[in-house]
Amino acid sequence: MDKGLQAFIDKLDTLKFSDMYENDFFFTWDKTDDEIMAVFTVADALRHMREKNISTRIFDSGLGISIFRDNSTRTRFSFASACNLLGLAVQDLDEKKSQIAHGETVRETANMVSFMADVIGIRDDMYIGKGHTYQKTVVDAVTEGYRHGILEQKPTLVNLQCDVDHPTQCLADMEEIIHYFGGVENLKGKKLAMTWAYSPSYGKPLSVPQGVIGLMTRFGMDVVLAHPEGYDVFPECEEIARRNAEKSGGSFTKVASMQEAFRDADIVYPKSWAPFAAMEKRTELYGKGDFDGIDALEKELLAQNATHKDWTCSEELMKTTKDGKALYLHCLPADISGVSCEAGEVDASVFNRYLDPLYKEASYKPYIIAAMIFLAKCKDPQGTLRRLAERNKPRLFR
Amino acid sequence: MDKGLQAFIDKLDTLKFSDMYENDFFFTWDKTDDEIMAVFTVADALRHMREKNISTRIFDSGLGISIFRDNSTRTRFSFASACNLLGLAVQDLDEKKSQIAHGETVRETANMVSFMADVIGIRDDMYIGKGHTYQKTVVDAVTEGYRHGILEQKPTLVNLQCDVDHPTQCLADMEEIIHYFGGVENLKGKKLAMTWAYSPSYGKPLSVPQGVIGLMTRFGMDVVLAHPEGYDVFPECEEIARRNAEKSGGSFTKVASMQEAFRDADIVYPKSWAPFAAMEKRTELYGKGDFDGIDALEKELLAQNATHKDWTCSEELMKTTKDGKALYLHCLPADISGVSCEAGEVDASVFNRYLDPLYKEASYKPYIIAAMIFLAKCKDPQGTLRRLAERNKPRLFR
Amino acid sequence: MDKGLQAFIDKLDTLKFSDMYENDFFFTWDKTDDEIMAVFTVADALRHMREKNISTRIFDSGLGISIFRDNSTRTRFSFASACNLLGLAVQDLDEKKSQIAHGETVRETANMVSFMADVIGIRDDMYIGKGHTYQKTVVDAVTEGYRHGILEQKPTLVNLQCDVDHPTQCLADMEEIIHYFGGVENLKGKKLAMTWAYSPSYGKPLSVPQGVIGLMTRFGMDVVLAHPEGYDVFPECEEIARRNAEKSGGSFTKVASMQEAFRDADIVYPKSWAPFAAMEKRTELYGKGDFDGIDALEKELLAQNATHKDWTCSEELMKTTKDGKALYLHCLPADISGVSCEAGEVDASVFNRYLDPLYKEASYKPYIIAAMIFLAKCKDPQGTLRRLAERNKPRLFR
Repeated sequence: MDKGLQAFIDKLDTLKFSDMYENDFFFTWDKTDDEIMAVFTVADALRHMREKNISTRIFDSGLGISIFRDNSTRTRFSFASACNLLGLAVQDLDEKKSQIAHGETVRETANMVSFMADVIGIRDDMYIGKGHTYQKTVVDAVTEGYRHGILEQKPTLVNLQCDVDHPTQCLADMEEIIHYFGGVENLKGKKLAMTWAYSPSYGKPLSVPQGVIGLMTRFGMDVVLAHPEGYDVFPECEEIARRNAEKSGGSFTKVASMQEAFRDADIVYPKSWAPFAAMEKRTELYGKGDFDGIDALEKELLAQNATHKDWTCSEELMKTTKDGKALYLHCLPADISGVSCEAGEVDASVFNRYLDPLYKEASYKPYIIAAMIFLAKCKDPQGTLRRLAERNKPRLFR
Repeated sequence: MDKGLQAFIDKLDTLKFSDMYENDFFFTWDKTDDEIMAVFTVADALRHMREKNISTRIFDSGLGISIFRDNSTRTRFSFASACNLLGLAVQDLDEKKSQIAHGETVRETANMVSFMADVIGIRDDMYIGKGHTYQKTVVDAVTEGYRHGILEQKPTLVNLQCDVDHPTQCLADMEEIIHYFGGVENLKGKKLAMTWAYSPSYGKPLSVPQGVIGLMTRFGMDVVLAHPEGYDVFPECEEIARRNAEKSGGSFTKVASMQEAFRDADIVYPKSWAPFAAMEKRTELYGKGDFDGIDALEKELLAQNATHKDWTCSEELMKTTKDGKALYLHCLPADISGVSCEAGEVDASVFNRYLDPLYKEASYKPYIIAAMIFLAKCKDPQGTLRRLAERNKPRLFR
Repeated sequence: MDKGLQAFIDKLDTLKFSDMYENDFFFTWDKTDDEIMAVFTVADALRHMREKNISTRIFDSGLGISIFRDNSTRTRFSFASACNLLGLAVQDLDEKKSQIAHGETVRETANMVSFMADVIGIRDDMYIGKGHTYQKTVVDAVTEGYRHGILEQKPTLVNLQCDVDHPTQCLADMEEIIHYFGGVENLKGKKLAMTWAYSPSYGKPLSVPQGVIGLMTRFGMDVVLAHPEGYDVFPECEEIARRNAEKSGGSFTKVASMQEAFRDADIVYPKSWAPFAAMEKRTELYGKGDFDGIDALEKELLAQNATHKDWTCSEELMKTTKDGKALYLHCLPADISGVSCEAGEVDASVFNRYLDPLYKEASYKPYIIAAMIFLAKCKDPQGTLRRLAERNKPRLFR
């Protein structure tokens, strides 16, 4: 077997992650450090094998169900790519063509679509308190279905973004950081600035900043969160970040300005999100079906947003980072000043300088998702990787 | 070879079903008793193999075309699962993105999408006299295309519900009955009540009750049909039921109340459907493009429906069934009183008590569809099953 | 190995087409005669193998991305069939669910969807000067992504119709001609009439007539183009046709009437398209977002169209062709007089007489697309064909 793959298998041998088998992926903070490292390692191993033209198709049949309750291009294609890499066919549950309303029916639909489903990927990030709850309801339903002999296999949930966390994104971001700095061992003491940034659009989910502080604090880095007043993230996510930082020997701090956050930062992640209280109010209005209220709220928020146009990742600000060369991250698409909008999250010249790492960052997502599935479906992942290498079936037969 | 699979093959050896090869599946009553049993047996064999992690993928490439002229979740996913289980990729013909209008173009489109199609699954259940006609037109077109050398293979039609029959549903229902009662041989003399039930919605197809009485009368059971005045099903379906009952040594009777139908029933299937005459009128209005007329008709029918709210599967009624424990069936989704609507087809407590058999019932549909395809595509089904077992390719490689 | 396949491999051995490897397919006139013949030969070889139940699946995983900026049935299913035949799963980029606007974002989206994409098929034929530009932008983006190590493979572009050419259609048309007349060697001196024809619809792309004169002039035929005043095609396409004709020993001429074009023709291709200047004006109005202007223009054009109702492929006209039996071609769907419209491109009796060759013509498209992909992905296509034959995996395992 080639040495590259052997190194990944050796790495896995040092980690404990047996609980991932037949389990789900809701939040990164549900997982141990070893489990997180197992995801990165399997993702790298799958990528390595694909680059060597070795098929990693483990399913000869099976479905990956996707449920997108919000628009998506990147995550949709990442999920499709991951499923395809492992041999699953994607079947999208378009809720406009079915009718899912209350708890009862979620349970029913979840079972009805899962008779041959190995994976269910869900994006539901629009309303605070709703997204994770929905994913949990689906998982409870199929777990019960499996226990009662309705389903022959328990489909694994992959959280493709909820109101709380965006694990596939943040793990891809993190893998970019690890590769960029040449290994986890080089991250201790690095400063990462997760900051709010102005965007002319409204109501972006909080799950990216929450996911970032909830994950990036695990590697000994100094993670700084900055946002204007009123744009707080969930307190429980800050608490997780604090505990992680303490455990990892890093730190988690909050500062009041982008300037302070960016100063000497090794990594910057400037990104817009909605004000917390407003998102809660929006969820409440939505619950009441008060769409006029939602429109009024939207106007108010856009006005509030507009008072923070100075929160932007400018060339001047970038100069204040470590050697003026901090790694710029974004989950994409970014609101680029003068390109996709008049004034937005980032200067065009900054964005363009970081195109390659940004795209590379995104390129990890399909492998992260595939790794999550692989670890949930293979009881002995190292053995399966080894047997795939021995099978040596080409991805492209030539 | 494992004994389980051998038993299914032995069973198939006792049946005559060679006419199913390269044939279509419109109605259950087109098929002989042996052919129906072959569907059940292959469905069970495929399920058995999947449970043993043996891949039943017979297609290395090929398409399963789906045409849904009505919303669908269960059947859509069942069709997708069945195709995937056998190795076909599903390609949906979204008629909004093409333009199918008159007979000429149906013929053309049917051929144009079928160059690499092994199966075409169609749901067209909205208008009386239209659904089956459309399916027939498609089948005639591709049969002609195949004869003229346009198509290299004749795609097999799977009726995913038309205005007349819903064979994949009714065969799944029937498979649940067979398994629930421990075999076909135990069904003689069992009483099955197919009854109308109130629902606040309007215009549900007649194909389920028609399919149920057209199929369930073949197994020696006493099948009773009950509905309010004006909610008759197609007379030709009643005639089929009568003939079946006679031949099978069972009976087919009509009664005027749910109470009478439920009394001492072993199986109950209470379900809403539209009044026949109204459905005919609706088709006529639709033909004229009279959408105001359709709206007016809808209001009238909802009012008519509402006079029959007492037709509901209540706890009280269930108590009158055999030992108070009749098997409750439904094609799902049901209109559950107090859950999905104020007053509907069934009490929530009844529905919830039967969740497991209901979901199990639904779980047979993918296998029923796969069996229909398998029997239409394999000239020697027993041989193919045997060779699949010998090939012994794992569904999930681990 | 069977002799049929060997003949195709022998044919390929006489051709030079190594530049097609890892290349794209924009226009037929970008390709040498040998390259065009390689497409036909591989298409025939793949069809031959499918007919012999030999799987030509070369991809064990991988995606074919489709982007349809205009409605499509035939081309959509052809692309899906081609991808499936080779083992790729189709993932459609629905632009309504993403947001692609300006050059910047096209570049980004192109990379974001391509991490595991082997092929990208694009239809963008609505606006002059836009379709090809868009395809080029996508190709430049993924080529750069591949060079920069973002993408592990360069996805191949298949032009599924742009404003300039419709290569998959015209190559399928041409393959029908070749087979119909028993080989390329029999085409010298044959007369082909590409003529405009009246249709009550508006704004059909110019890419079919342009593609036809740009391709069909390569085989020594006498190609005649006829259209009413104002319905010119791109001058550069006429120039290509002229040069091709000269090189191939055929001819390219323009005449002013359908009558003259049809006289003694061996092949006729009567088809509606929009007036050039109007299409340019429409693109300009679209650029300004002047939708009232577009509506006004549409009315004007329909009126202009209507003055040319005599341009129709009637029985009378067909009688004037060679022995009254010219091969009638159309890319479908046709506007058939008295069937799909009151007065249209062709008499129903003419159309119906040619159903078999018309459908056969369409049946080549999936194989043409598959051949384009095969030639772009296999460094040694003859070797791969040979190894596929040796592998001898059945398409349908029985």
